[in-house]
Order: sequence, then C-alpha cells, then structure tokens
Amino acid sequence: MKKLILIRHGESEWNKLNLFTGWTDVDLTENGCREAFEAGKLLKKEGYRPEICFTSYLKRAVKTLNNVLDALDMDYLPVEKSWRLNEKSYGAIQGLNKADTAAKYGEAQVKLWRRSYDVQPPALVMDDERSPRRDPRYNELSDSEIPLTESLKDTIARLMPYYKDTILKAFETHNEIMVVAHGNSLRGIVKELRQMTNDEIIEFNIPTAIPYIFELNDDFSVKKHFFLGDQEEIARKMQSVANQALKK
Amino acid sequence: MKKLILIRHGESEWNKLNLFTGWTDVDLTENGCREAFEAGKLLKKEGYRPEICFTSYLKRAVKTLNNVLDALDMDYLPVEKSWRLNEKSYGAIQGLNKADTAAKYGEAQVKLWRRSYDVQPPALVMDDERSPRRDPRYNELSDSEIPLTESLKDTIARLMPYYKDTILKAFETHNEIMVVAHGNSLRGIVKELRQMTNDEIIEFNIPTAIPYIFELNDDFSVKKHFFLGDQEEIARKMQSVANQALKK
Repeated sequence: MKKLILIRHGESEWNKLNLFTGWTDVDLTENGCREAFEAGKLLKKEGYRPEICFTSYLKRAVKTLNNVLDALDMDYLPVEKSWRLNEKSYGAIQGLNKADTAAKYGEAQVKLWRRSYDVQPPALVMDDERSPRRDPRYNELSDSEIPLTESLKDTIARLMPYYKDTILKAFETHNEIMVVAHGNSLRGIVKELRQMTNDEIIEFNIPTAIPYIFELNDDFSVKKHFFLGDQEEIARKMQSVANQALKK
Repeated sequence: MKKLILIRHGESEWNKLNLFTGWTDVDLTENGCREAFEAGKLLKKEGYRPEICFTSYLKRAVKTLNNVLDALDMDYLPVEKSWRLNEKSYGAIQGLNKADTAAKYGEAQVKLWRRSYDVQPPALVMDDERSPRRDPRYNELSDSEIPLTESLKDTIARLMPYYKDTILKAFETHNEIMVVAHGNSLRGIVKELRQMTNDEIIEFNIPTAIPYIFELNDDFSVKKHFFLGDQEEIARKMQSVANQALKK
C-alpha cells in the first residue's frame, strides 16, 4: 500500500509574532523544533518508515523535516527541496502584523487576502528588498516563475507540476513518502487528493507538526486519511490556526 | 575558480567515550553541534557560498552539515547523501574502547588497524547485530558492497567512484561544493587531490569541524589549500586526533 505523510512545519518566529510570513525565510522557534521532534517520535512509534522526503526552500520547513528525521533515527533519508513547495506568497503584506493589517484594511479585506481562493494580496514592487527576485536561491528561476504575490489558486498552480511529476512519480520506486511544507502548499495537495472544491479547501485548516496520513490506492485515489495523534489536541490546533487573524 | 570545501564532522558521543565508531550511527554531542555551527559562521564571514553539498549516511555527518547550513543561512541548499562517504568500517572492534583495545591487543596491533594503509581490523561475522547488512538503509546495496571491515585502502576504493563520477562531476554546473564526511573518507579525497603517498596520508590528521578549502584549477589540480580559521586552534585539534589511541 502507498502512504503519503504530510507535515506542516512547526511554530515559526513569525507565527509567534502573528506576522504574515509567506516567502520570508524565518526560523522555527524552540517550540517549533520540539513539535517537529514529537511528530517524528510519533511516526516512529506507529511504525512509519518513509523512504524519501520532499520539502521547500524555506528553513522552517527544512528544519522541521530535519527534526522529524532525527526523531525517526533516519537522518540518512534522501531529501529533495523545491521552491514549488514554498508557502503562498503574501506579497507586500509580508512582515506586517495580522491584527494590525485587519485594523487598517478591515477584517473583510484581510480575510479575502488570507482565505479567498483567487484574490491576491497587494504585490511586492520589483525593487522591494523583500522580493525573492533579489534572493540568490531563486537565481535559476525565470522572473515569471518567482511570484511577487499569490492567491491560493496561484500557489496550487505552481505546486501541481512538481506534485504530479516528481512527488507522485516517486511512488514508482517507493511505498512511503513524506512531504514537509506549509499551510497553503499542503492545501494544494489535500485539495487534489480529496477532490475538494475551492470553498472546501479554504475552510480546511491543517494543524502544525501533526502527521497527516494518506493511504492511497494504485491510481492515487484515497483509501483512508487521518491525522496521527491525540484527536482533541489536533482539534484544538486546527481551531487555533483558524483564529489567527483575530489575535491581538 | 572552483572551490571544494571539506569538513570532518564535529565531536560525536563515541569520540567523547573514545570508542571505535566506524559505521555505527552515533549522534553528535552538543559540543559537536556547536563546533559545526561555528564552522558555518566562519564560512559565512569569509564569504563562502557553496551551491551543492554531499554527505554520508551517518547522522554525525548529516547533522554537522545541517548545522553548517543553518549558520550559513542556506538551509535550502541541495544535499546528496551517499554510503560511499561513510567512515572506514572498523569491523568487529566497533564499539570497543580504543585504550582498552590497545591494552588487550597491544599498541602496535591497534596502530596497524587504525593507521596502516592496508591492514583490516577483524571482520564482523555475518549475523553480528552490528552488521550493516542488517540495516535497512543499506538494502539497495549488494552484500559485496557492504563492508564487514575495511582498511583505509578499501575505504578509498569504494569512495573513489562516487568522488569522481558524482562530486567532481558537479563542478560542471557548480563552482563551490561542500563535502561533510569523516576522517578516513576525507583522507581519500585529500590523498587524491594532493597526490599523497600511502605513508603520507596515514600520517595526515584532519581536525574536526574545520573547513578545509581547496582552490582548484579546471583539471582539478590544486592551486591552493588551507584550513580556515585560527591556525593555533587547528594545530591543537590535529594533535588531539593523533593522540586519541593513547587516551585512557
């Protein structure tokens, strides 16, 4: 049986400060490292043995994966990193406080930027120092590939070729695959697997550092899907993500 | 100009306990993590920007690399792991104390196992629980590829195809390459680059967690090679490695 393990990164410095992060490369907090290590211990206890891992170019995902692998005692696993697994770009609101932004632009507008399927936040201008076009890690991409802002729809559009041509393709030689990424890039994978509508996926909140297990048939249809761990703790974490825009 | 950065992993739990380690997958100590992070900070300060990294299947090397990348703020770099960069297998003396082993077999014999070019330590028997043939990470290798013991000559022989066909080949598309590995696998690379004799390489001690920089010509001949950092500290570290067999 094929298994796909999805994990959203643990708490980052900017989660804690309640700032829009997007493509900003902020670090995990100590709590985020600990959450990730716990996720790995749980996978180990439940007998999961991933064979290959995928993650983004952002250190909060890479370091979550490193901690999961360490807890699994599988630091040796192959890891492939791709910008296509990066978080949704929040454009010019990256670095702004979520509550302040809601106070300034109105909650309805911010909710659109955060939770509509196809509304983009305001774009970064070309010479903004936050622009990923100034970041050498993206040198090999064309300007049209590097987003200055994204809707969830845009995020999913740039993720899908990698998901289909690389991640799913790895099932040809592997049975158990782990992807450690971000709230919105993982939404793209979940939407595809569960055949969710645009409205359904924007209401679906993935808790941090909880292994989300998909057991798949040969045609990649879903046999079974579930979050691994204490179900009350998971419900609390999902609610906490949903409440984030309202935090003071 | 092409640059090759070699780094030997930081202090491991068994370095501290003075045990023969070889292919045993022991963890870094806190000091080892710190050493690795310092190496990364030094590389960053001196302007090094590796583009791709290679390491072994052993966590003391993988985690040294993770810490170096974190200090460089380059967690996103591609990393390729290979068993061919593993430490020399110490066979049946893996897990034994170096001083005890010297007391039991005599210092001359232990020196041969540790420091001759072509004498192998006693081999693991097939069903020894320490045998890497029982470890799933090596499942894809044939029995003849997985060593039950190795001389330095054997280590270099299984390293060379990977060094030439993969690491050097990466210079076709990259200018700066980092390899984080082990005392004896790195000896193989240094011997090849510096065209050292068998006697010269066994007397050459690579200090832990010190970037060893090779500036290379297009034909991979060496333009310049040096250890990065405080030269007195480096000399002290090299001497400490040379003294290890004598420690009580």
